[in-house]
Amino acid sequence: MPKSPVQINSDEVADFLKQLSEIGATKKNGMSRLAYSPEWVGAMDLCSDWAKKAGLEVRTDAVGNLWARLKGLDDTSSIVTGSHIDSQHNGGCFDGALGAIGGILALKAIRNQFGVPKKTLEAVVLCEEEASRFPSAGFWGSRAIVGKISKNDLETVKTFDGEPISDIMREINLNPDDIPKAKRNDIDVFIELHIEQGPILEDAGIPVAIVNAITGVAHFEITLSGSQNHAGAFPMDLRRDPMAGFAEITTKLIDHAHRLGRPAVTTVGRCQVDPGGPAVIPRKVTFSIDARHPNVALRKELYKVHRNIIKEVATRRNLKYSIKKMIDLEPCQSDPELVSTLKLAAKSQGIDALIMPSGAGHDTQQMSKISRTAMVFVRSKDGRSHTPEEYSSLSDCTAGIRVLAEALKTLAY
Amino acid sequence: MPKSPVQINSDEVADFLKQLSEIGATKKNGMSRLAYSPEWVGAMDLCSDWAKKAGLEVRTDAVGNLWARLKGLDDTSSIVTGSHIDSQHNGGCFDGALGAIGGILALKAIRNQFGVPKKTLEAVVLCEEEASRFPSAGFWGSRAIVGKISKNDLETVKTFDGEPISDIMREINLNPDDIPKAKRNDIDVFIELHIEQGPILEDAGIPVAIVNAITGVAHFEITLSGSQNHAGAFPMDLRRDPMAGFAEITTKLIDHAHRLGRPAVTTVGRCQVDPGGPAVIPRKVTFSIDARHPNVALRKELYKVHRNIIKEVATRRNLKYSIKKMIDLEPCQSDPELVSTLKLAAKSQGIDALIMPSGAGHDTQQMSKISRTAMVFVRSKDGRSHTPEEYSSLSDCTAGIRVLAEALKTLAY
Repeated sequence: MPKSPVQINSDEVADFLKQLSEIGATKKNGMSRLAYSPEWVGAMDLCSDWAKKAGLEVRTDAVGNLWARLKGLDDTSSIVTGSHIDSQHNGGCFDGALGAIGGILALKAIRNQFGVPKKTLEAVVLCEEEASRFPSAGFWGSRAIVGKISKNDLETVKTFDGEPISDIMREINLNPDDIPKAKRNDIDVFIELHIEQGPILEDAGIPVAIVNAITGVAHFEITLSGSQNHAGAFPMDLRRDPMAGFAEITTKLIDHAHRLGRPAVTTVGRCQVDPGGPAVIPRKVTFSIDARHPNVALRKELYKVHRNIIKEVATRRNLKYSIKKMIDLEPCQSDPELVSTLKLAAKSQGIDALIMPSGAGHDTQQMSKISRTAMVFVRSKDGRSHTPEEYSSLSDCTAGIRVLAEALKTLAY
Repeated sequence: MPKSPVQINSDEVADFLKQLSEIGATKKNGMSRLAYSPEWVGAMDLCSDWAKKAGLEVRTDAVGNLWARLKGLDDTSSIVTGSHIDSQHNGGCFDGALGAIGGILALKAIRNQFGVPKKTLEAVVLCEEEASRFPSAGFWGSRAIVGKISKNDLETVKTFDGEPISDIMREINLNPDDIPKAKRNDIDVFIELHIEQGPILEDAGIPVAIVNAITGVAHFEITLSGSQNHAGAFPMDLRRDPMAGFAEITTKLIDHAHRLGRPAVTTVGRCQVDPGGPAVIPRKVTFSIDARHPNVALRKELYKVHRNIIKEVATRRNLKYSIKKMIDLEPCQSDPELVSTLKLAAKSQGIDALIMPSGAGHDTQQMSKISRTAMVFVRSKDGRSHTPEEYSSLSDCTAGIRVLAEALKTLAY
């Protein structure tokens, strides 16, 4: 393995970020680049041009992912990096885009500086992650790679307006019936570079993180039912008030996650009150719980505590309750060797790096079904994401690409 | 004053309640008798017939209230009883109706049993209290009597469909321009019989209450603002989560009213979350507070504690907050002499009576502007009201009318 660190030109990083941010730009640095849209096609073409000019072998797979290959002496399996190119509606310019650009720039630098690798390296630009155009298409690109798109999905996955994804794909000359051809079974390693989308790095004053796990998440829908009555005529001590139960449960759930400390999180983001009049003790309150932990056992323990709190409060307050599980995704552990490699890569590059779990979901979770995985995070200003205010400094973005490139070099040479 | 107690025939109470409950009946004992509707006209005609047959002088005033008079030797001022005849949409058969019937039956019994009184007695059937047809017409009948309907109200008070109340009045031959003629300034006493609409009497096992005050009420709209962020990527310790603030404030407000004990009540009946996604820490939570106390000083103290809780929680959680007062009605104290008279009346009739404040609003609050007032409550099954399940037993209804009639006899003879 070459000892000299990979050099990454920050002017080029700035240029690539700027060019890509212009395709689908909305006002005030916003970005709307929805999967398979004309903006998306334009961005894919730009990435393809960059990869070709970098001397990589370029192809588009059946689902629309763009692959840029640097063939190694041993071509039996691949070390892959990349991220998605689609964005939220009026989201930011860094979410996904940084990792897509970073992969191409890392392979370009490695090829220029070290020539043909021992193992094949590939940069992938994934076609869809955000589910911002097709609400149930999330991770569409990486799902195709791991073989997790069914024939049924082609009919049921539709735009918010009801257009099937298969029709949309055909409009840009992708044949949805060919999606199974996008499946790969020769990927040894997948490393994704991404912005953090949270405030942990900024809070710690560190530019880059190595992600040791992607958190597990469950969504619950809770219903609490009591007795609807007159807010004036019904005394406190005779009420069966689901709002009182909801408020107490929410306070206790949030307090519990707070006391557990990072990386546990519990969020109540939705709440509906029936009937919802100012002078009426409600009949029913329905609310959501999003709760996450990257440790398998501690995640189970967290949900157990939730259930106990809900049961205890509802029983004491004489309320009926129901708990419905809406989503349940197991945590995804990074490969420990890859985490070590990334740590050493950061050290070689003289970059301070935190070890932390990801609280958000990523394509890496899909890729982990067929490959060893890990991620690199880059500091987000104010922890903001999915908003035009999303921002990571050029220096931090370059640092992230340097860590990624250094690790790829270590693995491939 | 005649010593023998007033006799009330419970068969006649049952008959009157039954007849009135058939006009505007909905299924399962429900009632929709909206002000100035054909059902309302029918019910008014029925009350008028009853009063005429009872030997009372009957007239309808300019706003549509029905007055039934038993002229006394001294006719310079009147002792009045009554309640409203309109109902909620699919409300119950007792709310308002009991007091309207009770007044006529009380005067009928008094006249038959004791002849001409020293002071003039009047039973009034008030035309509108519920605001169920005209959202801003609440207490329309009693407001006309106390002179609190302005010319402007005639244009601005409309049905939910936008029809001005003045047009509706003209359709049933009431001239809205004559409303000022409905004003009275010769009412010495007003006593309203009404169902409790709460569970306090049932809980105490007592059929009747003498109301010593009508509670004061304020409605507040509170807005809490924090930072919208990703539910997964943002750790608990860095959040500015208005849902956490809302839940803690609501828990503390409800707990505080609970500890103060009766008659303090605090209700959070409405809550809106922005944006309201399960995986999004909200940006803003807006909620209502309805808080009541019949004591002037304690009511102020209650709102001060509210403000302190909101300020303390919002400040500690780094949330912005605003408090908007939407409604603010001072408590209405019953006349202590009338309360004593009603207590003695209950005793004379051998009826156990509780002394309690009313947590709900009543026409009596309006009447207190021109007259000494008090109220009699009758036990409500399960404390339910504004629903077809609203129910008071014949025995309890009769008990309430006996207490009312006995007090009127004491005052008028």
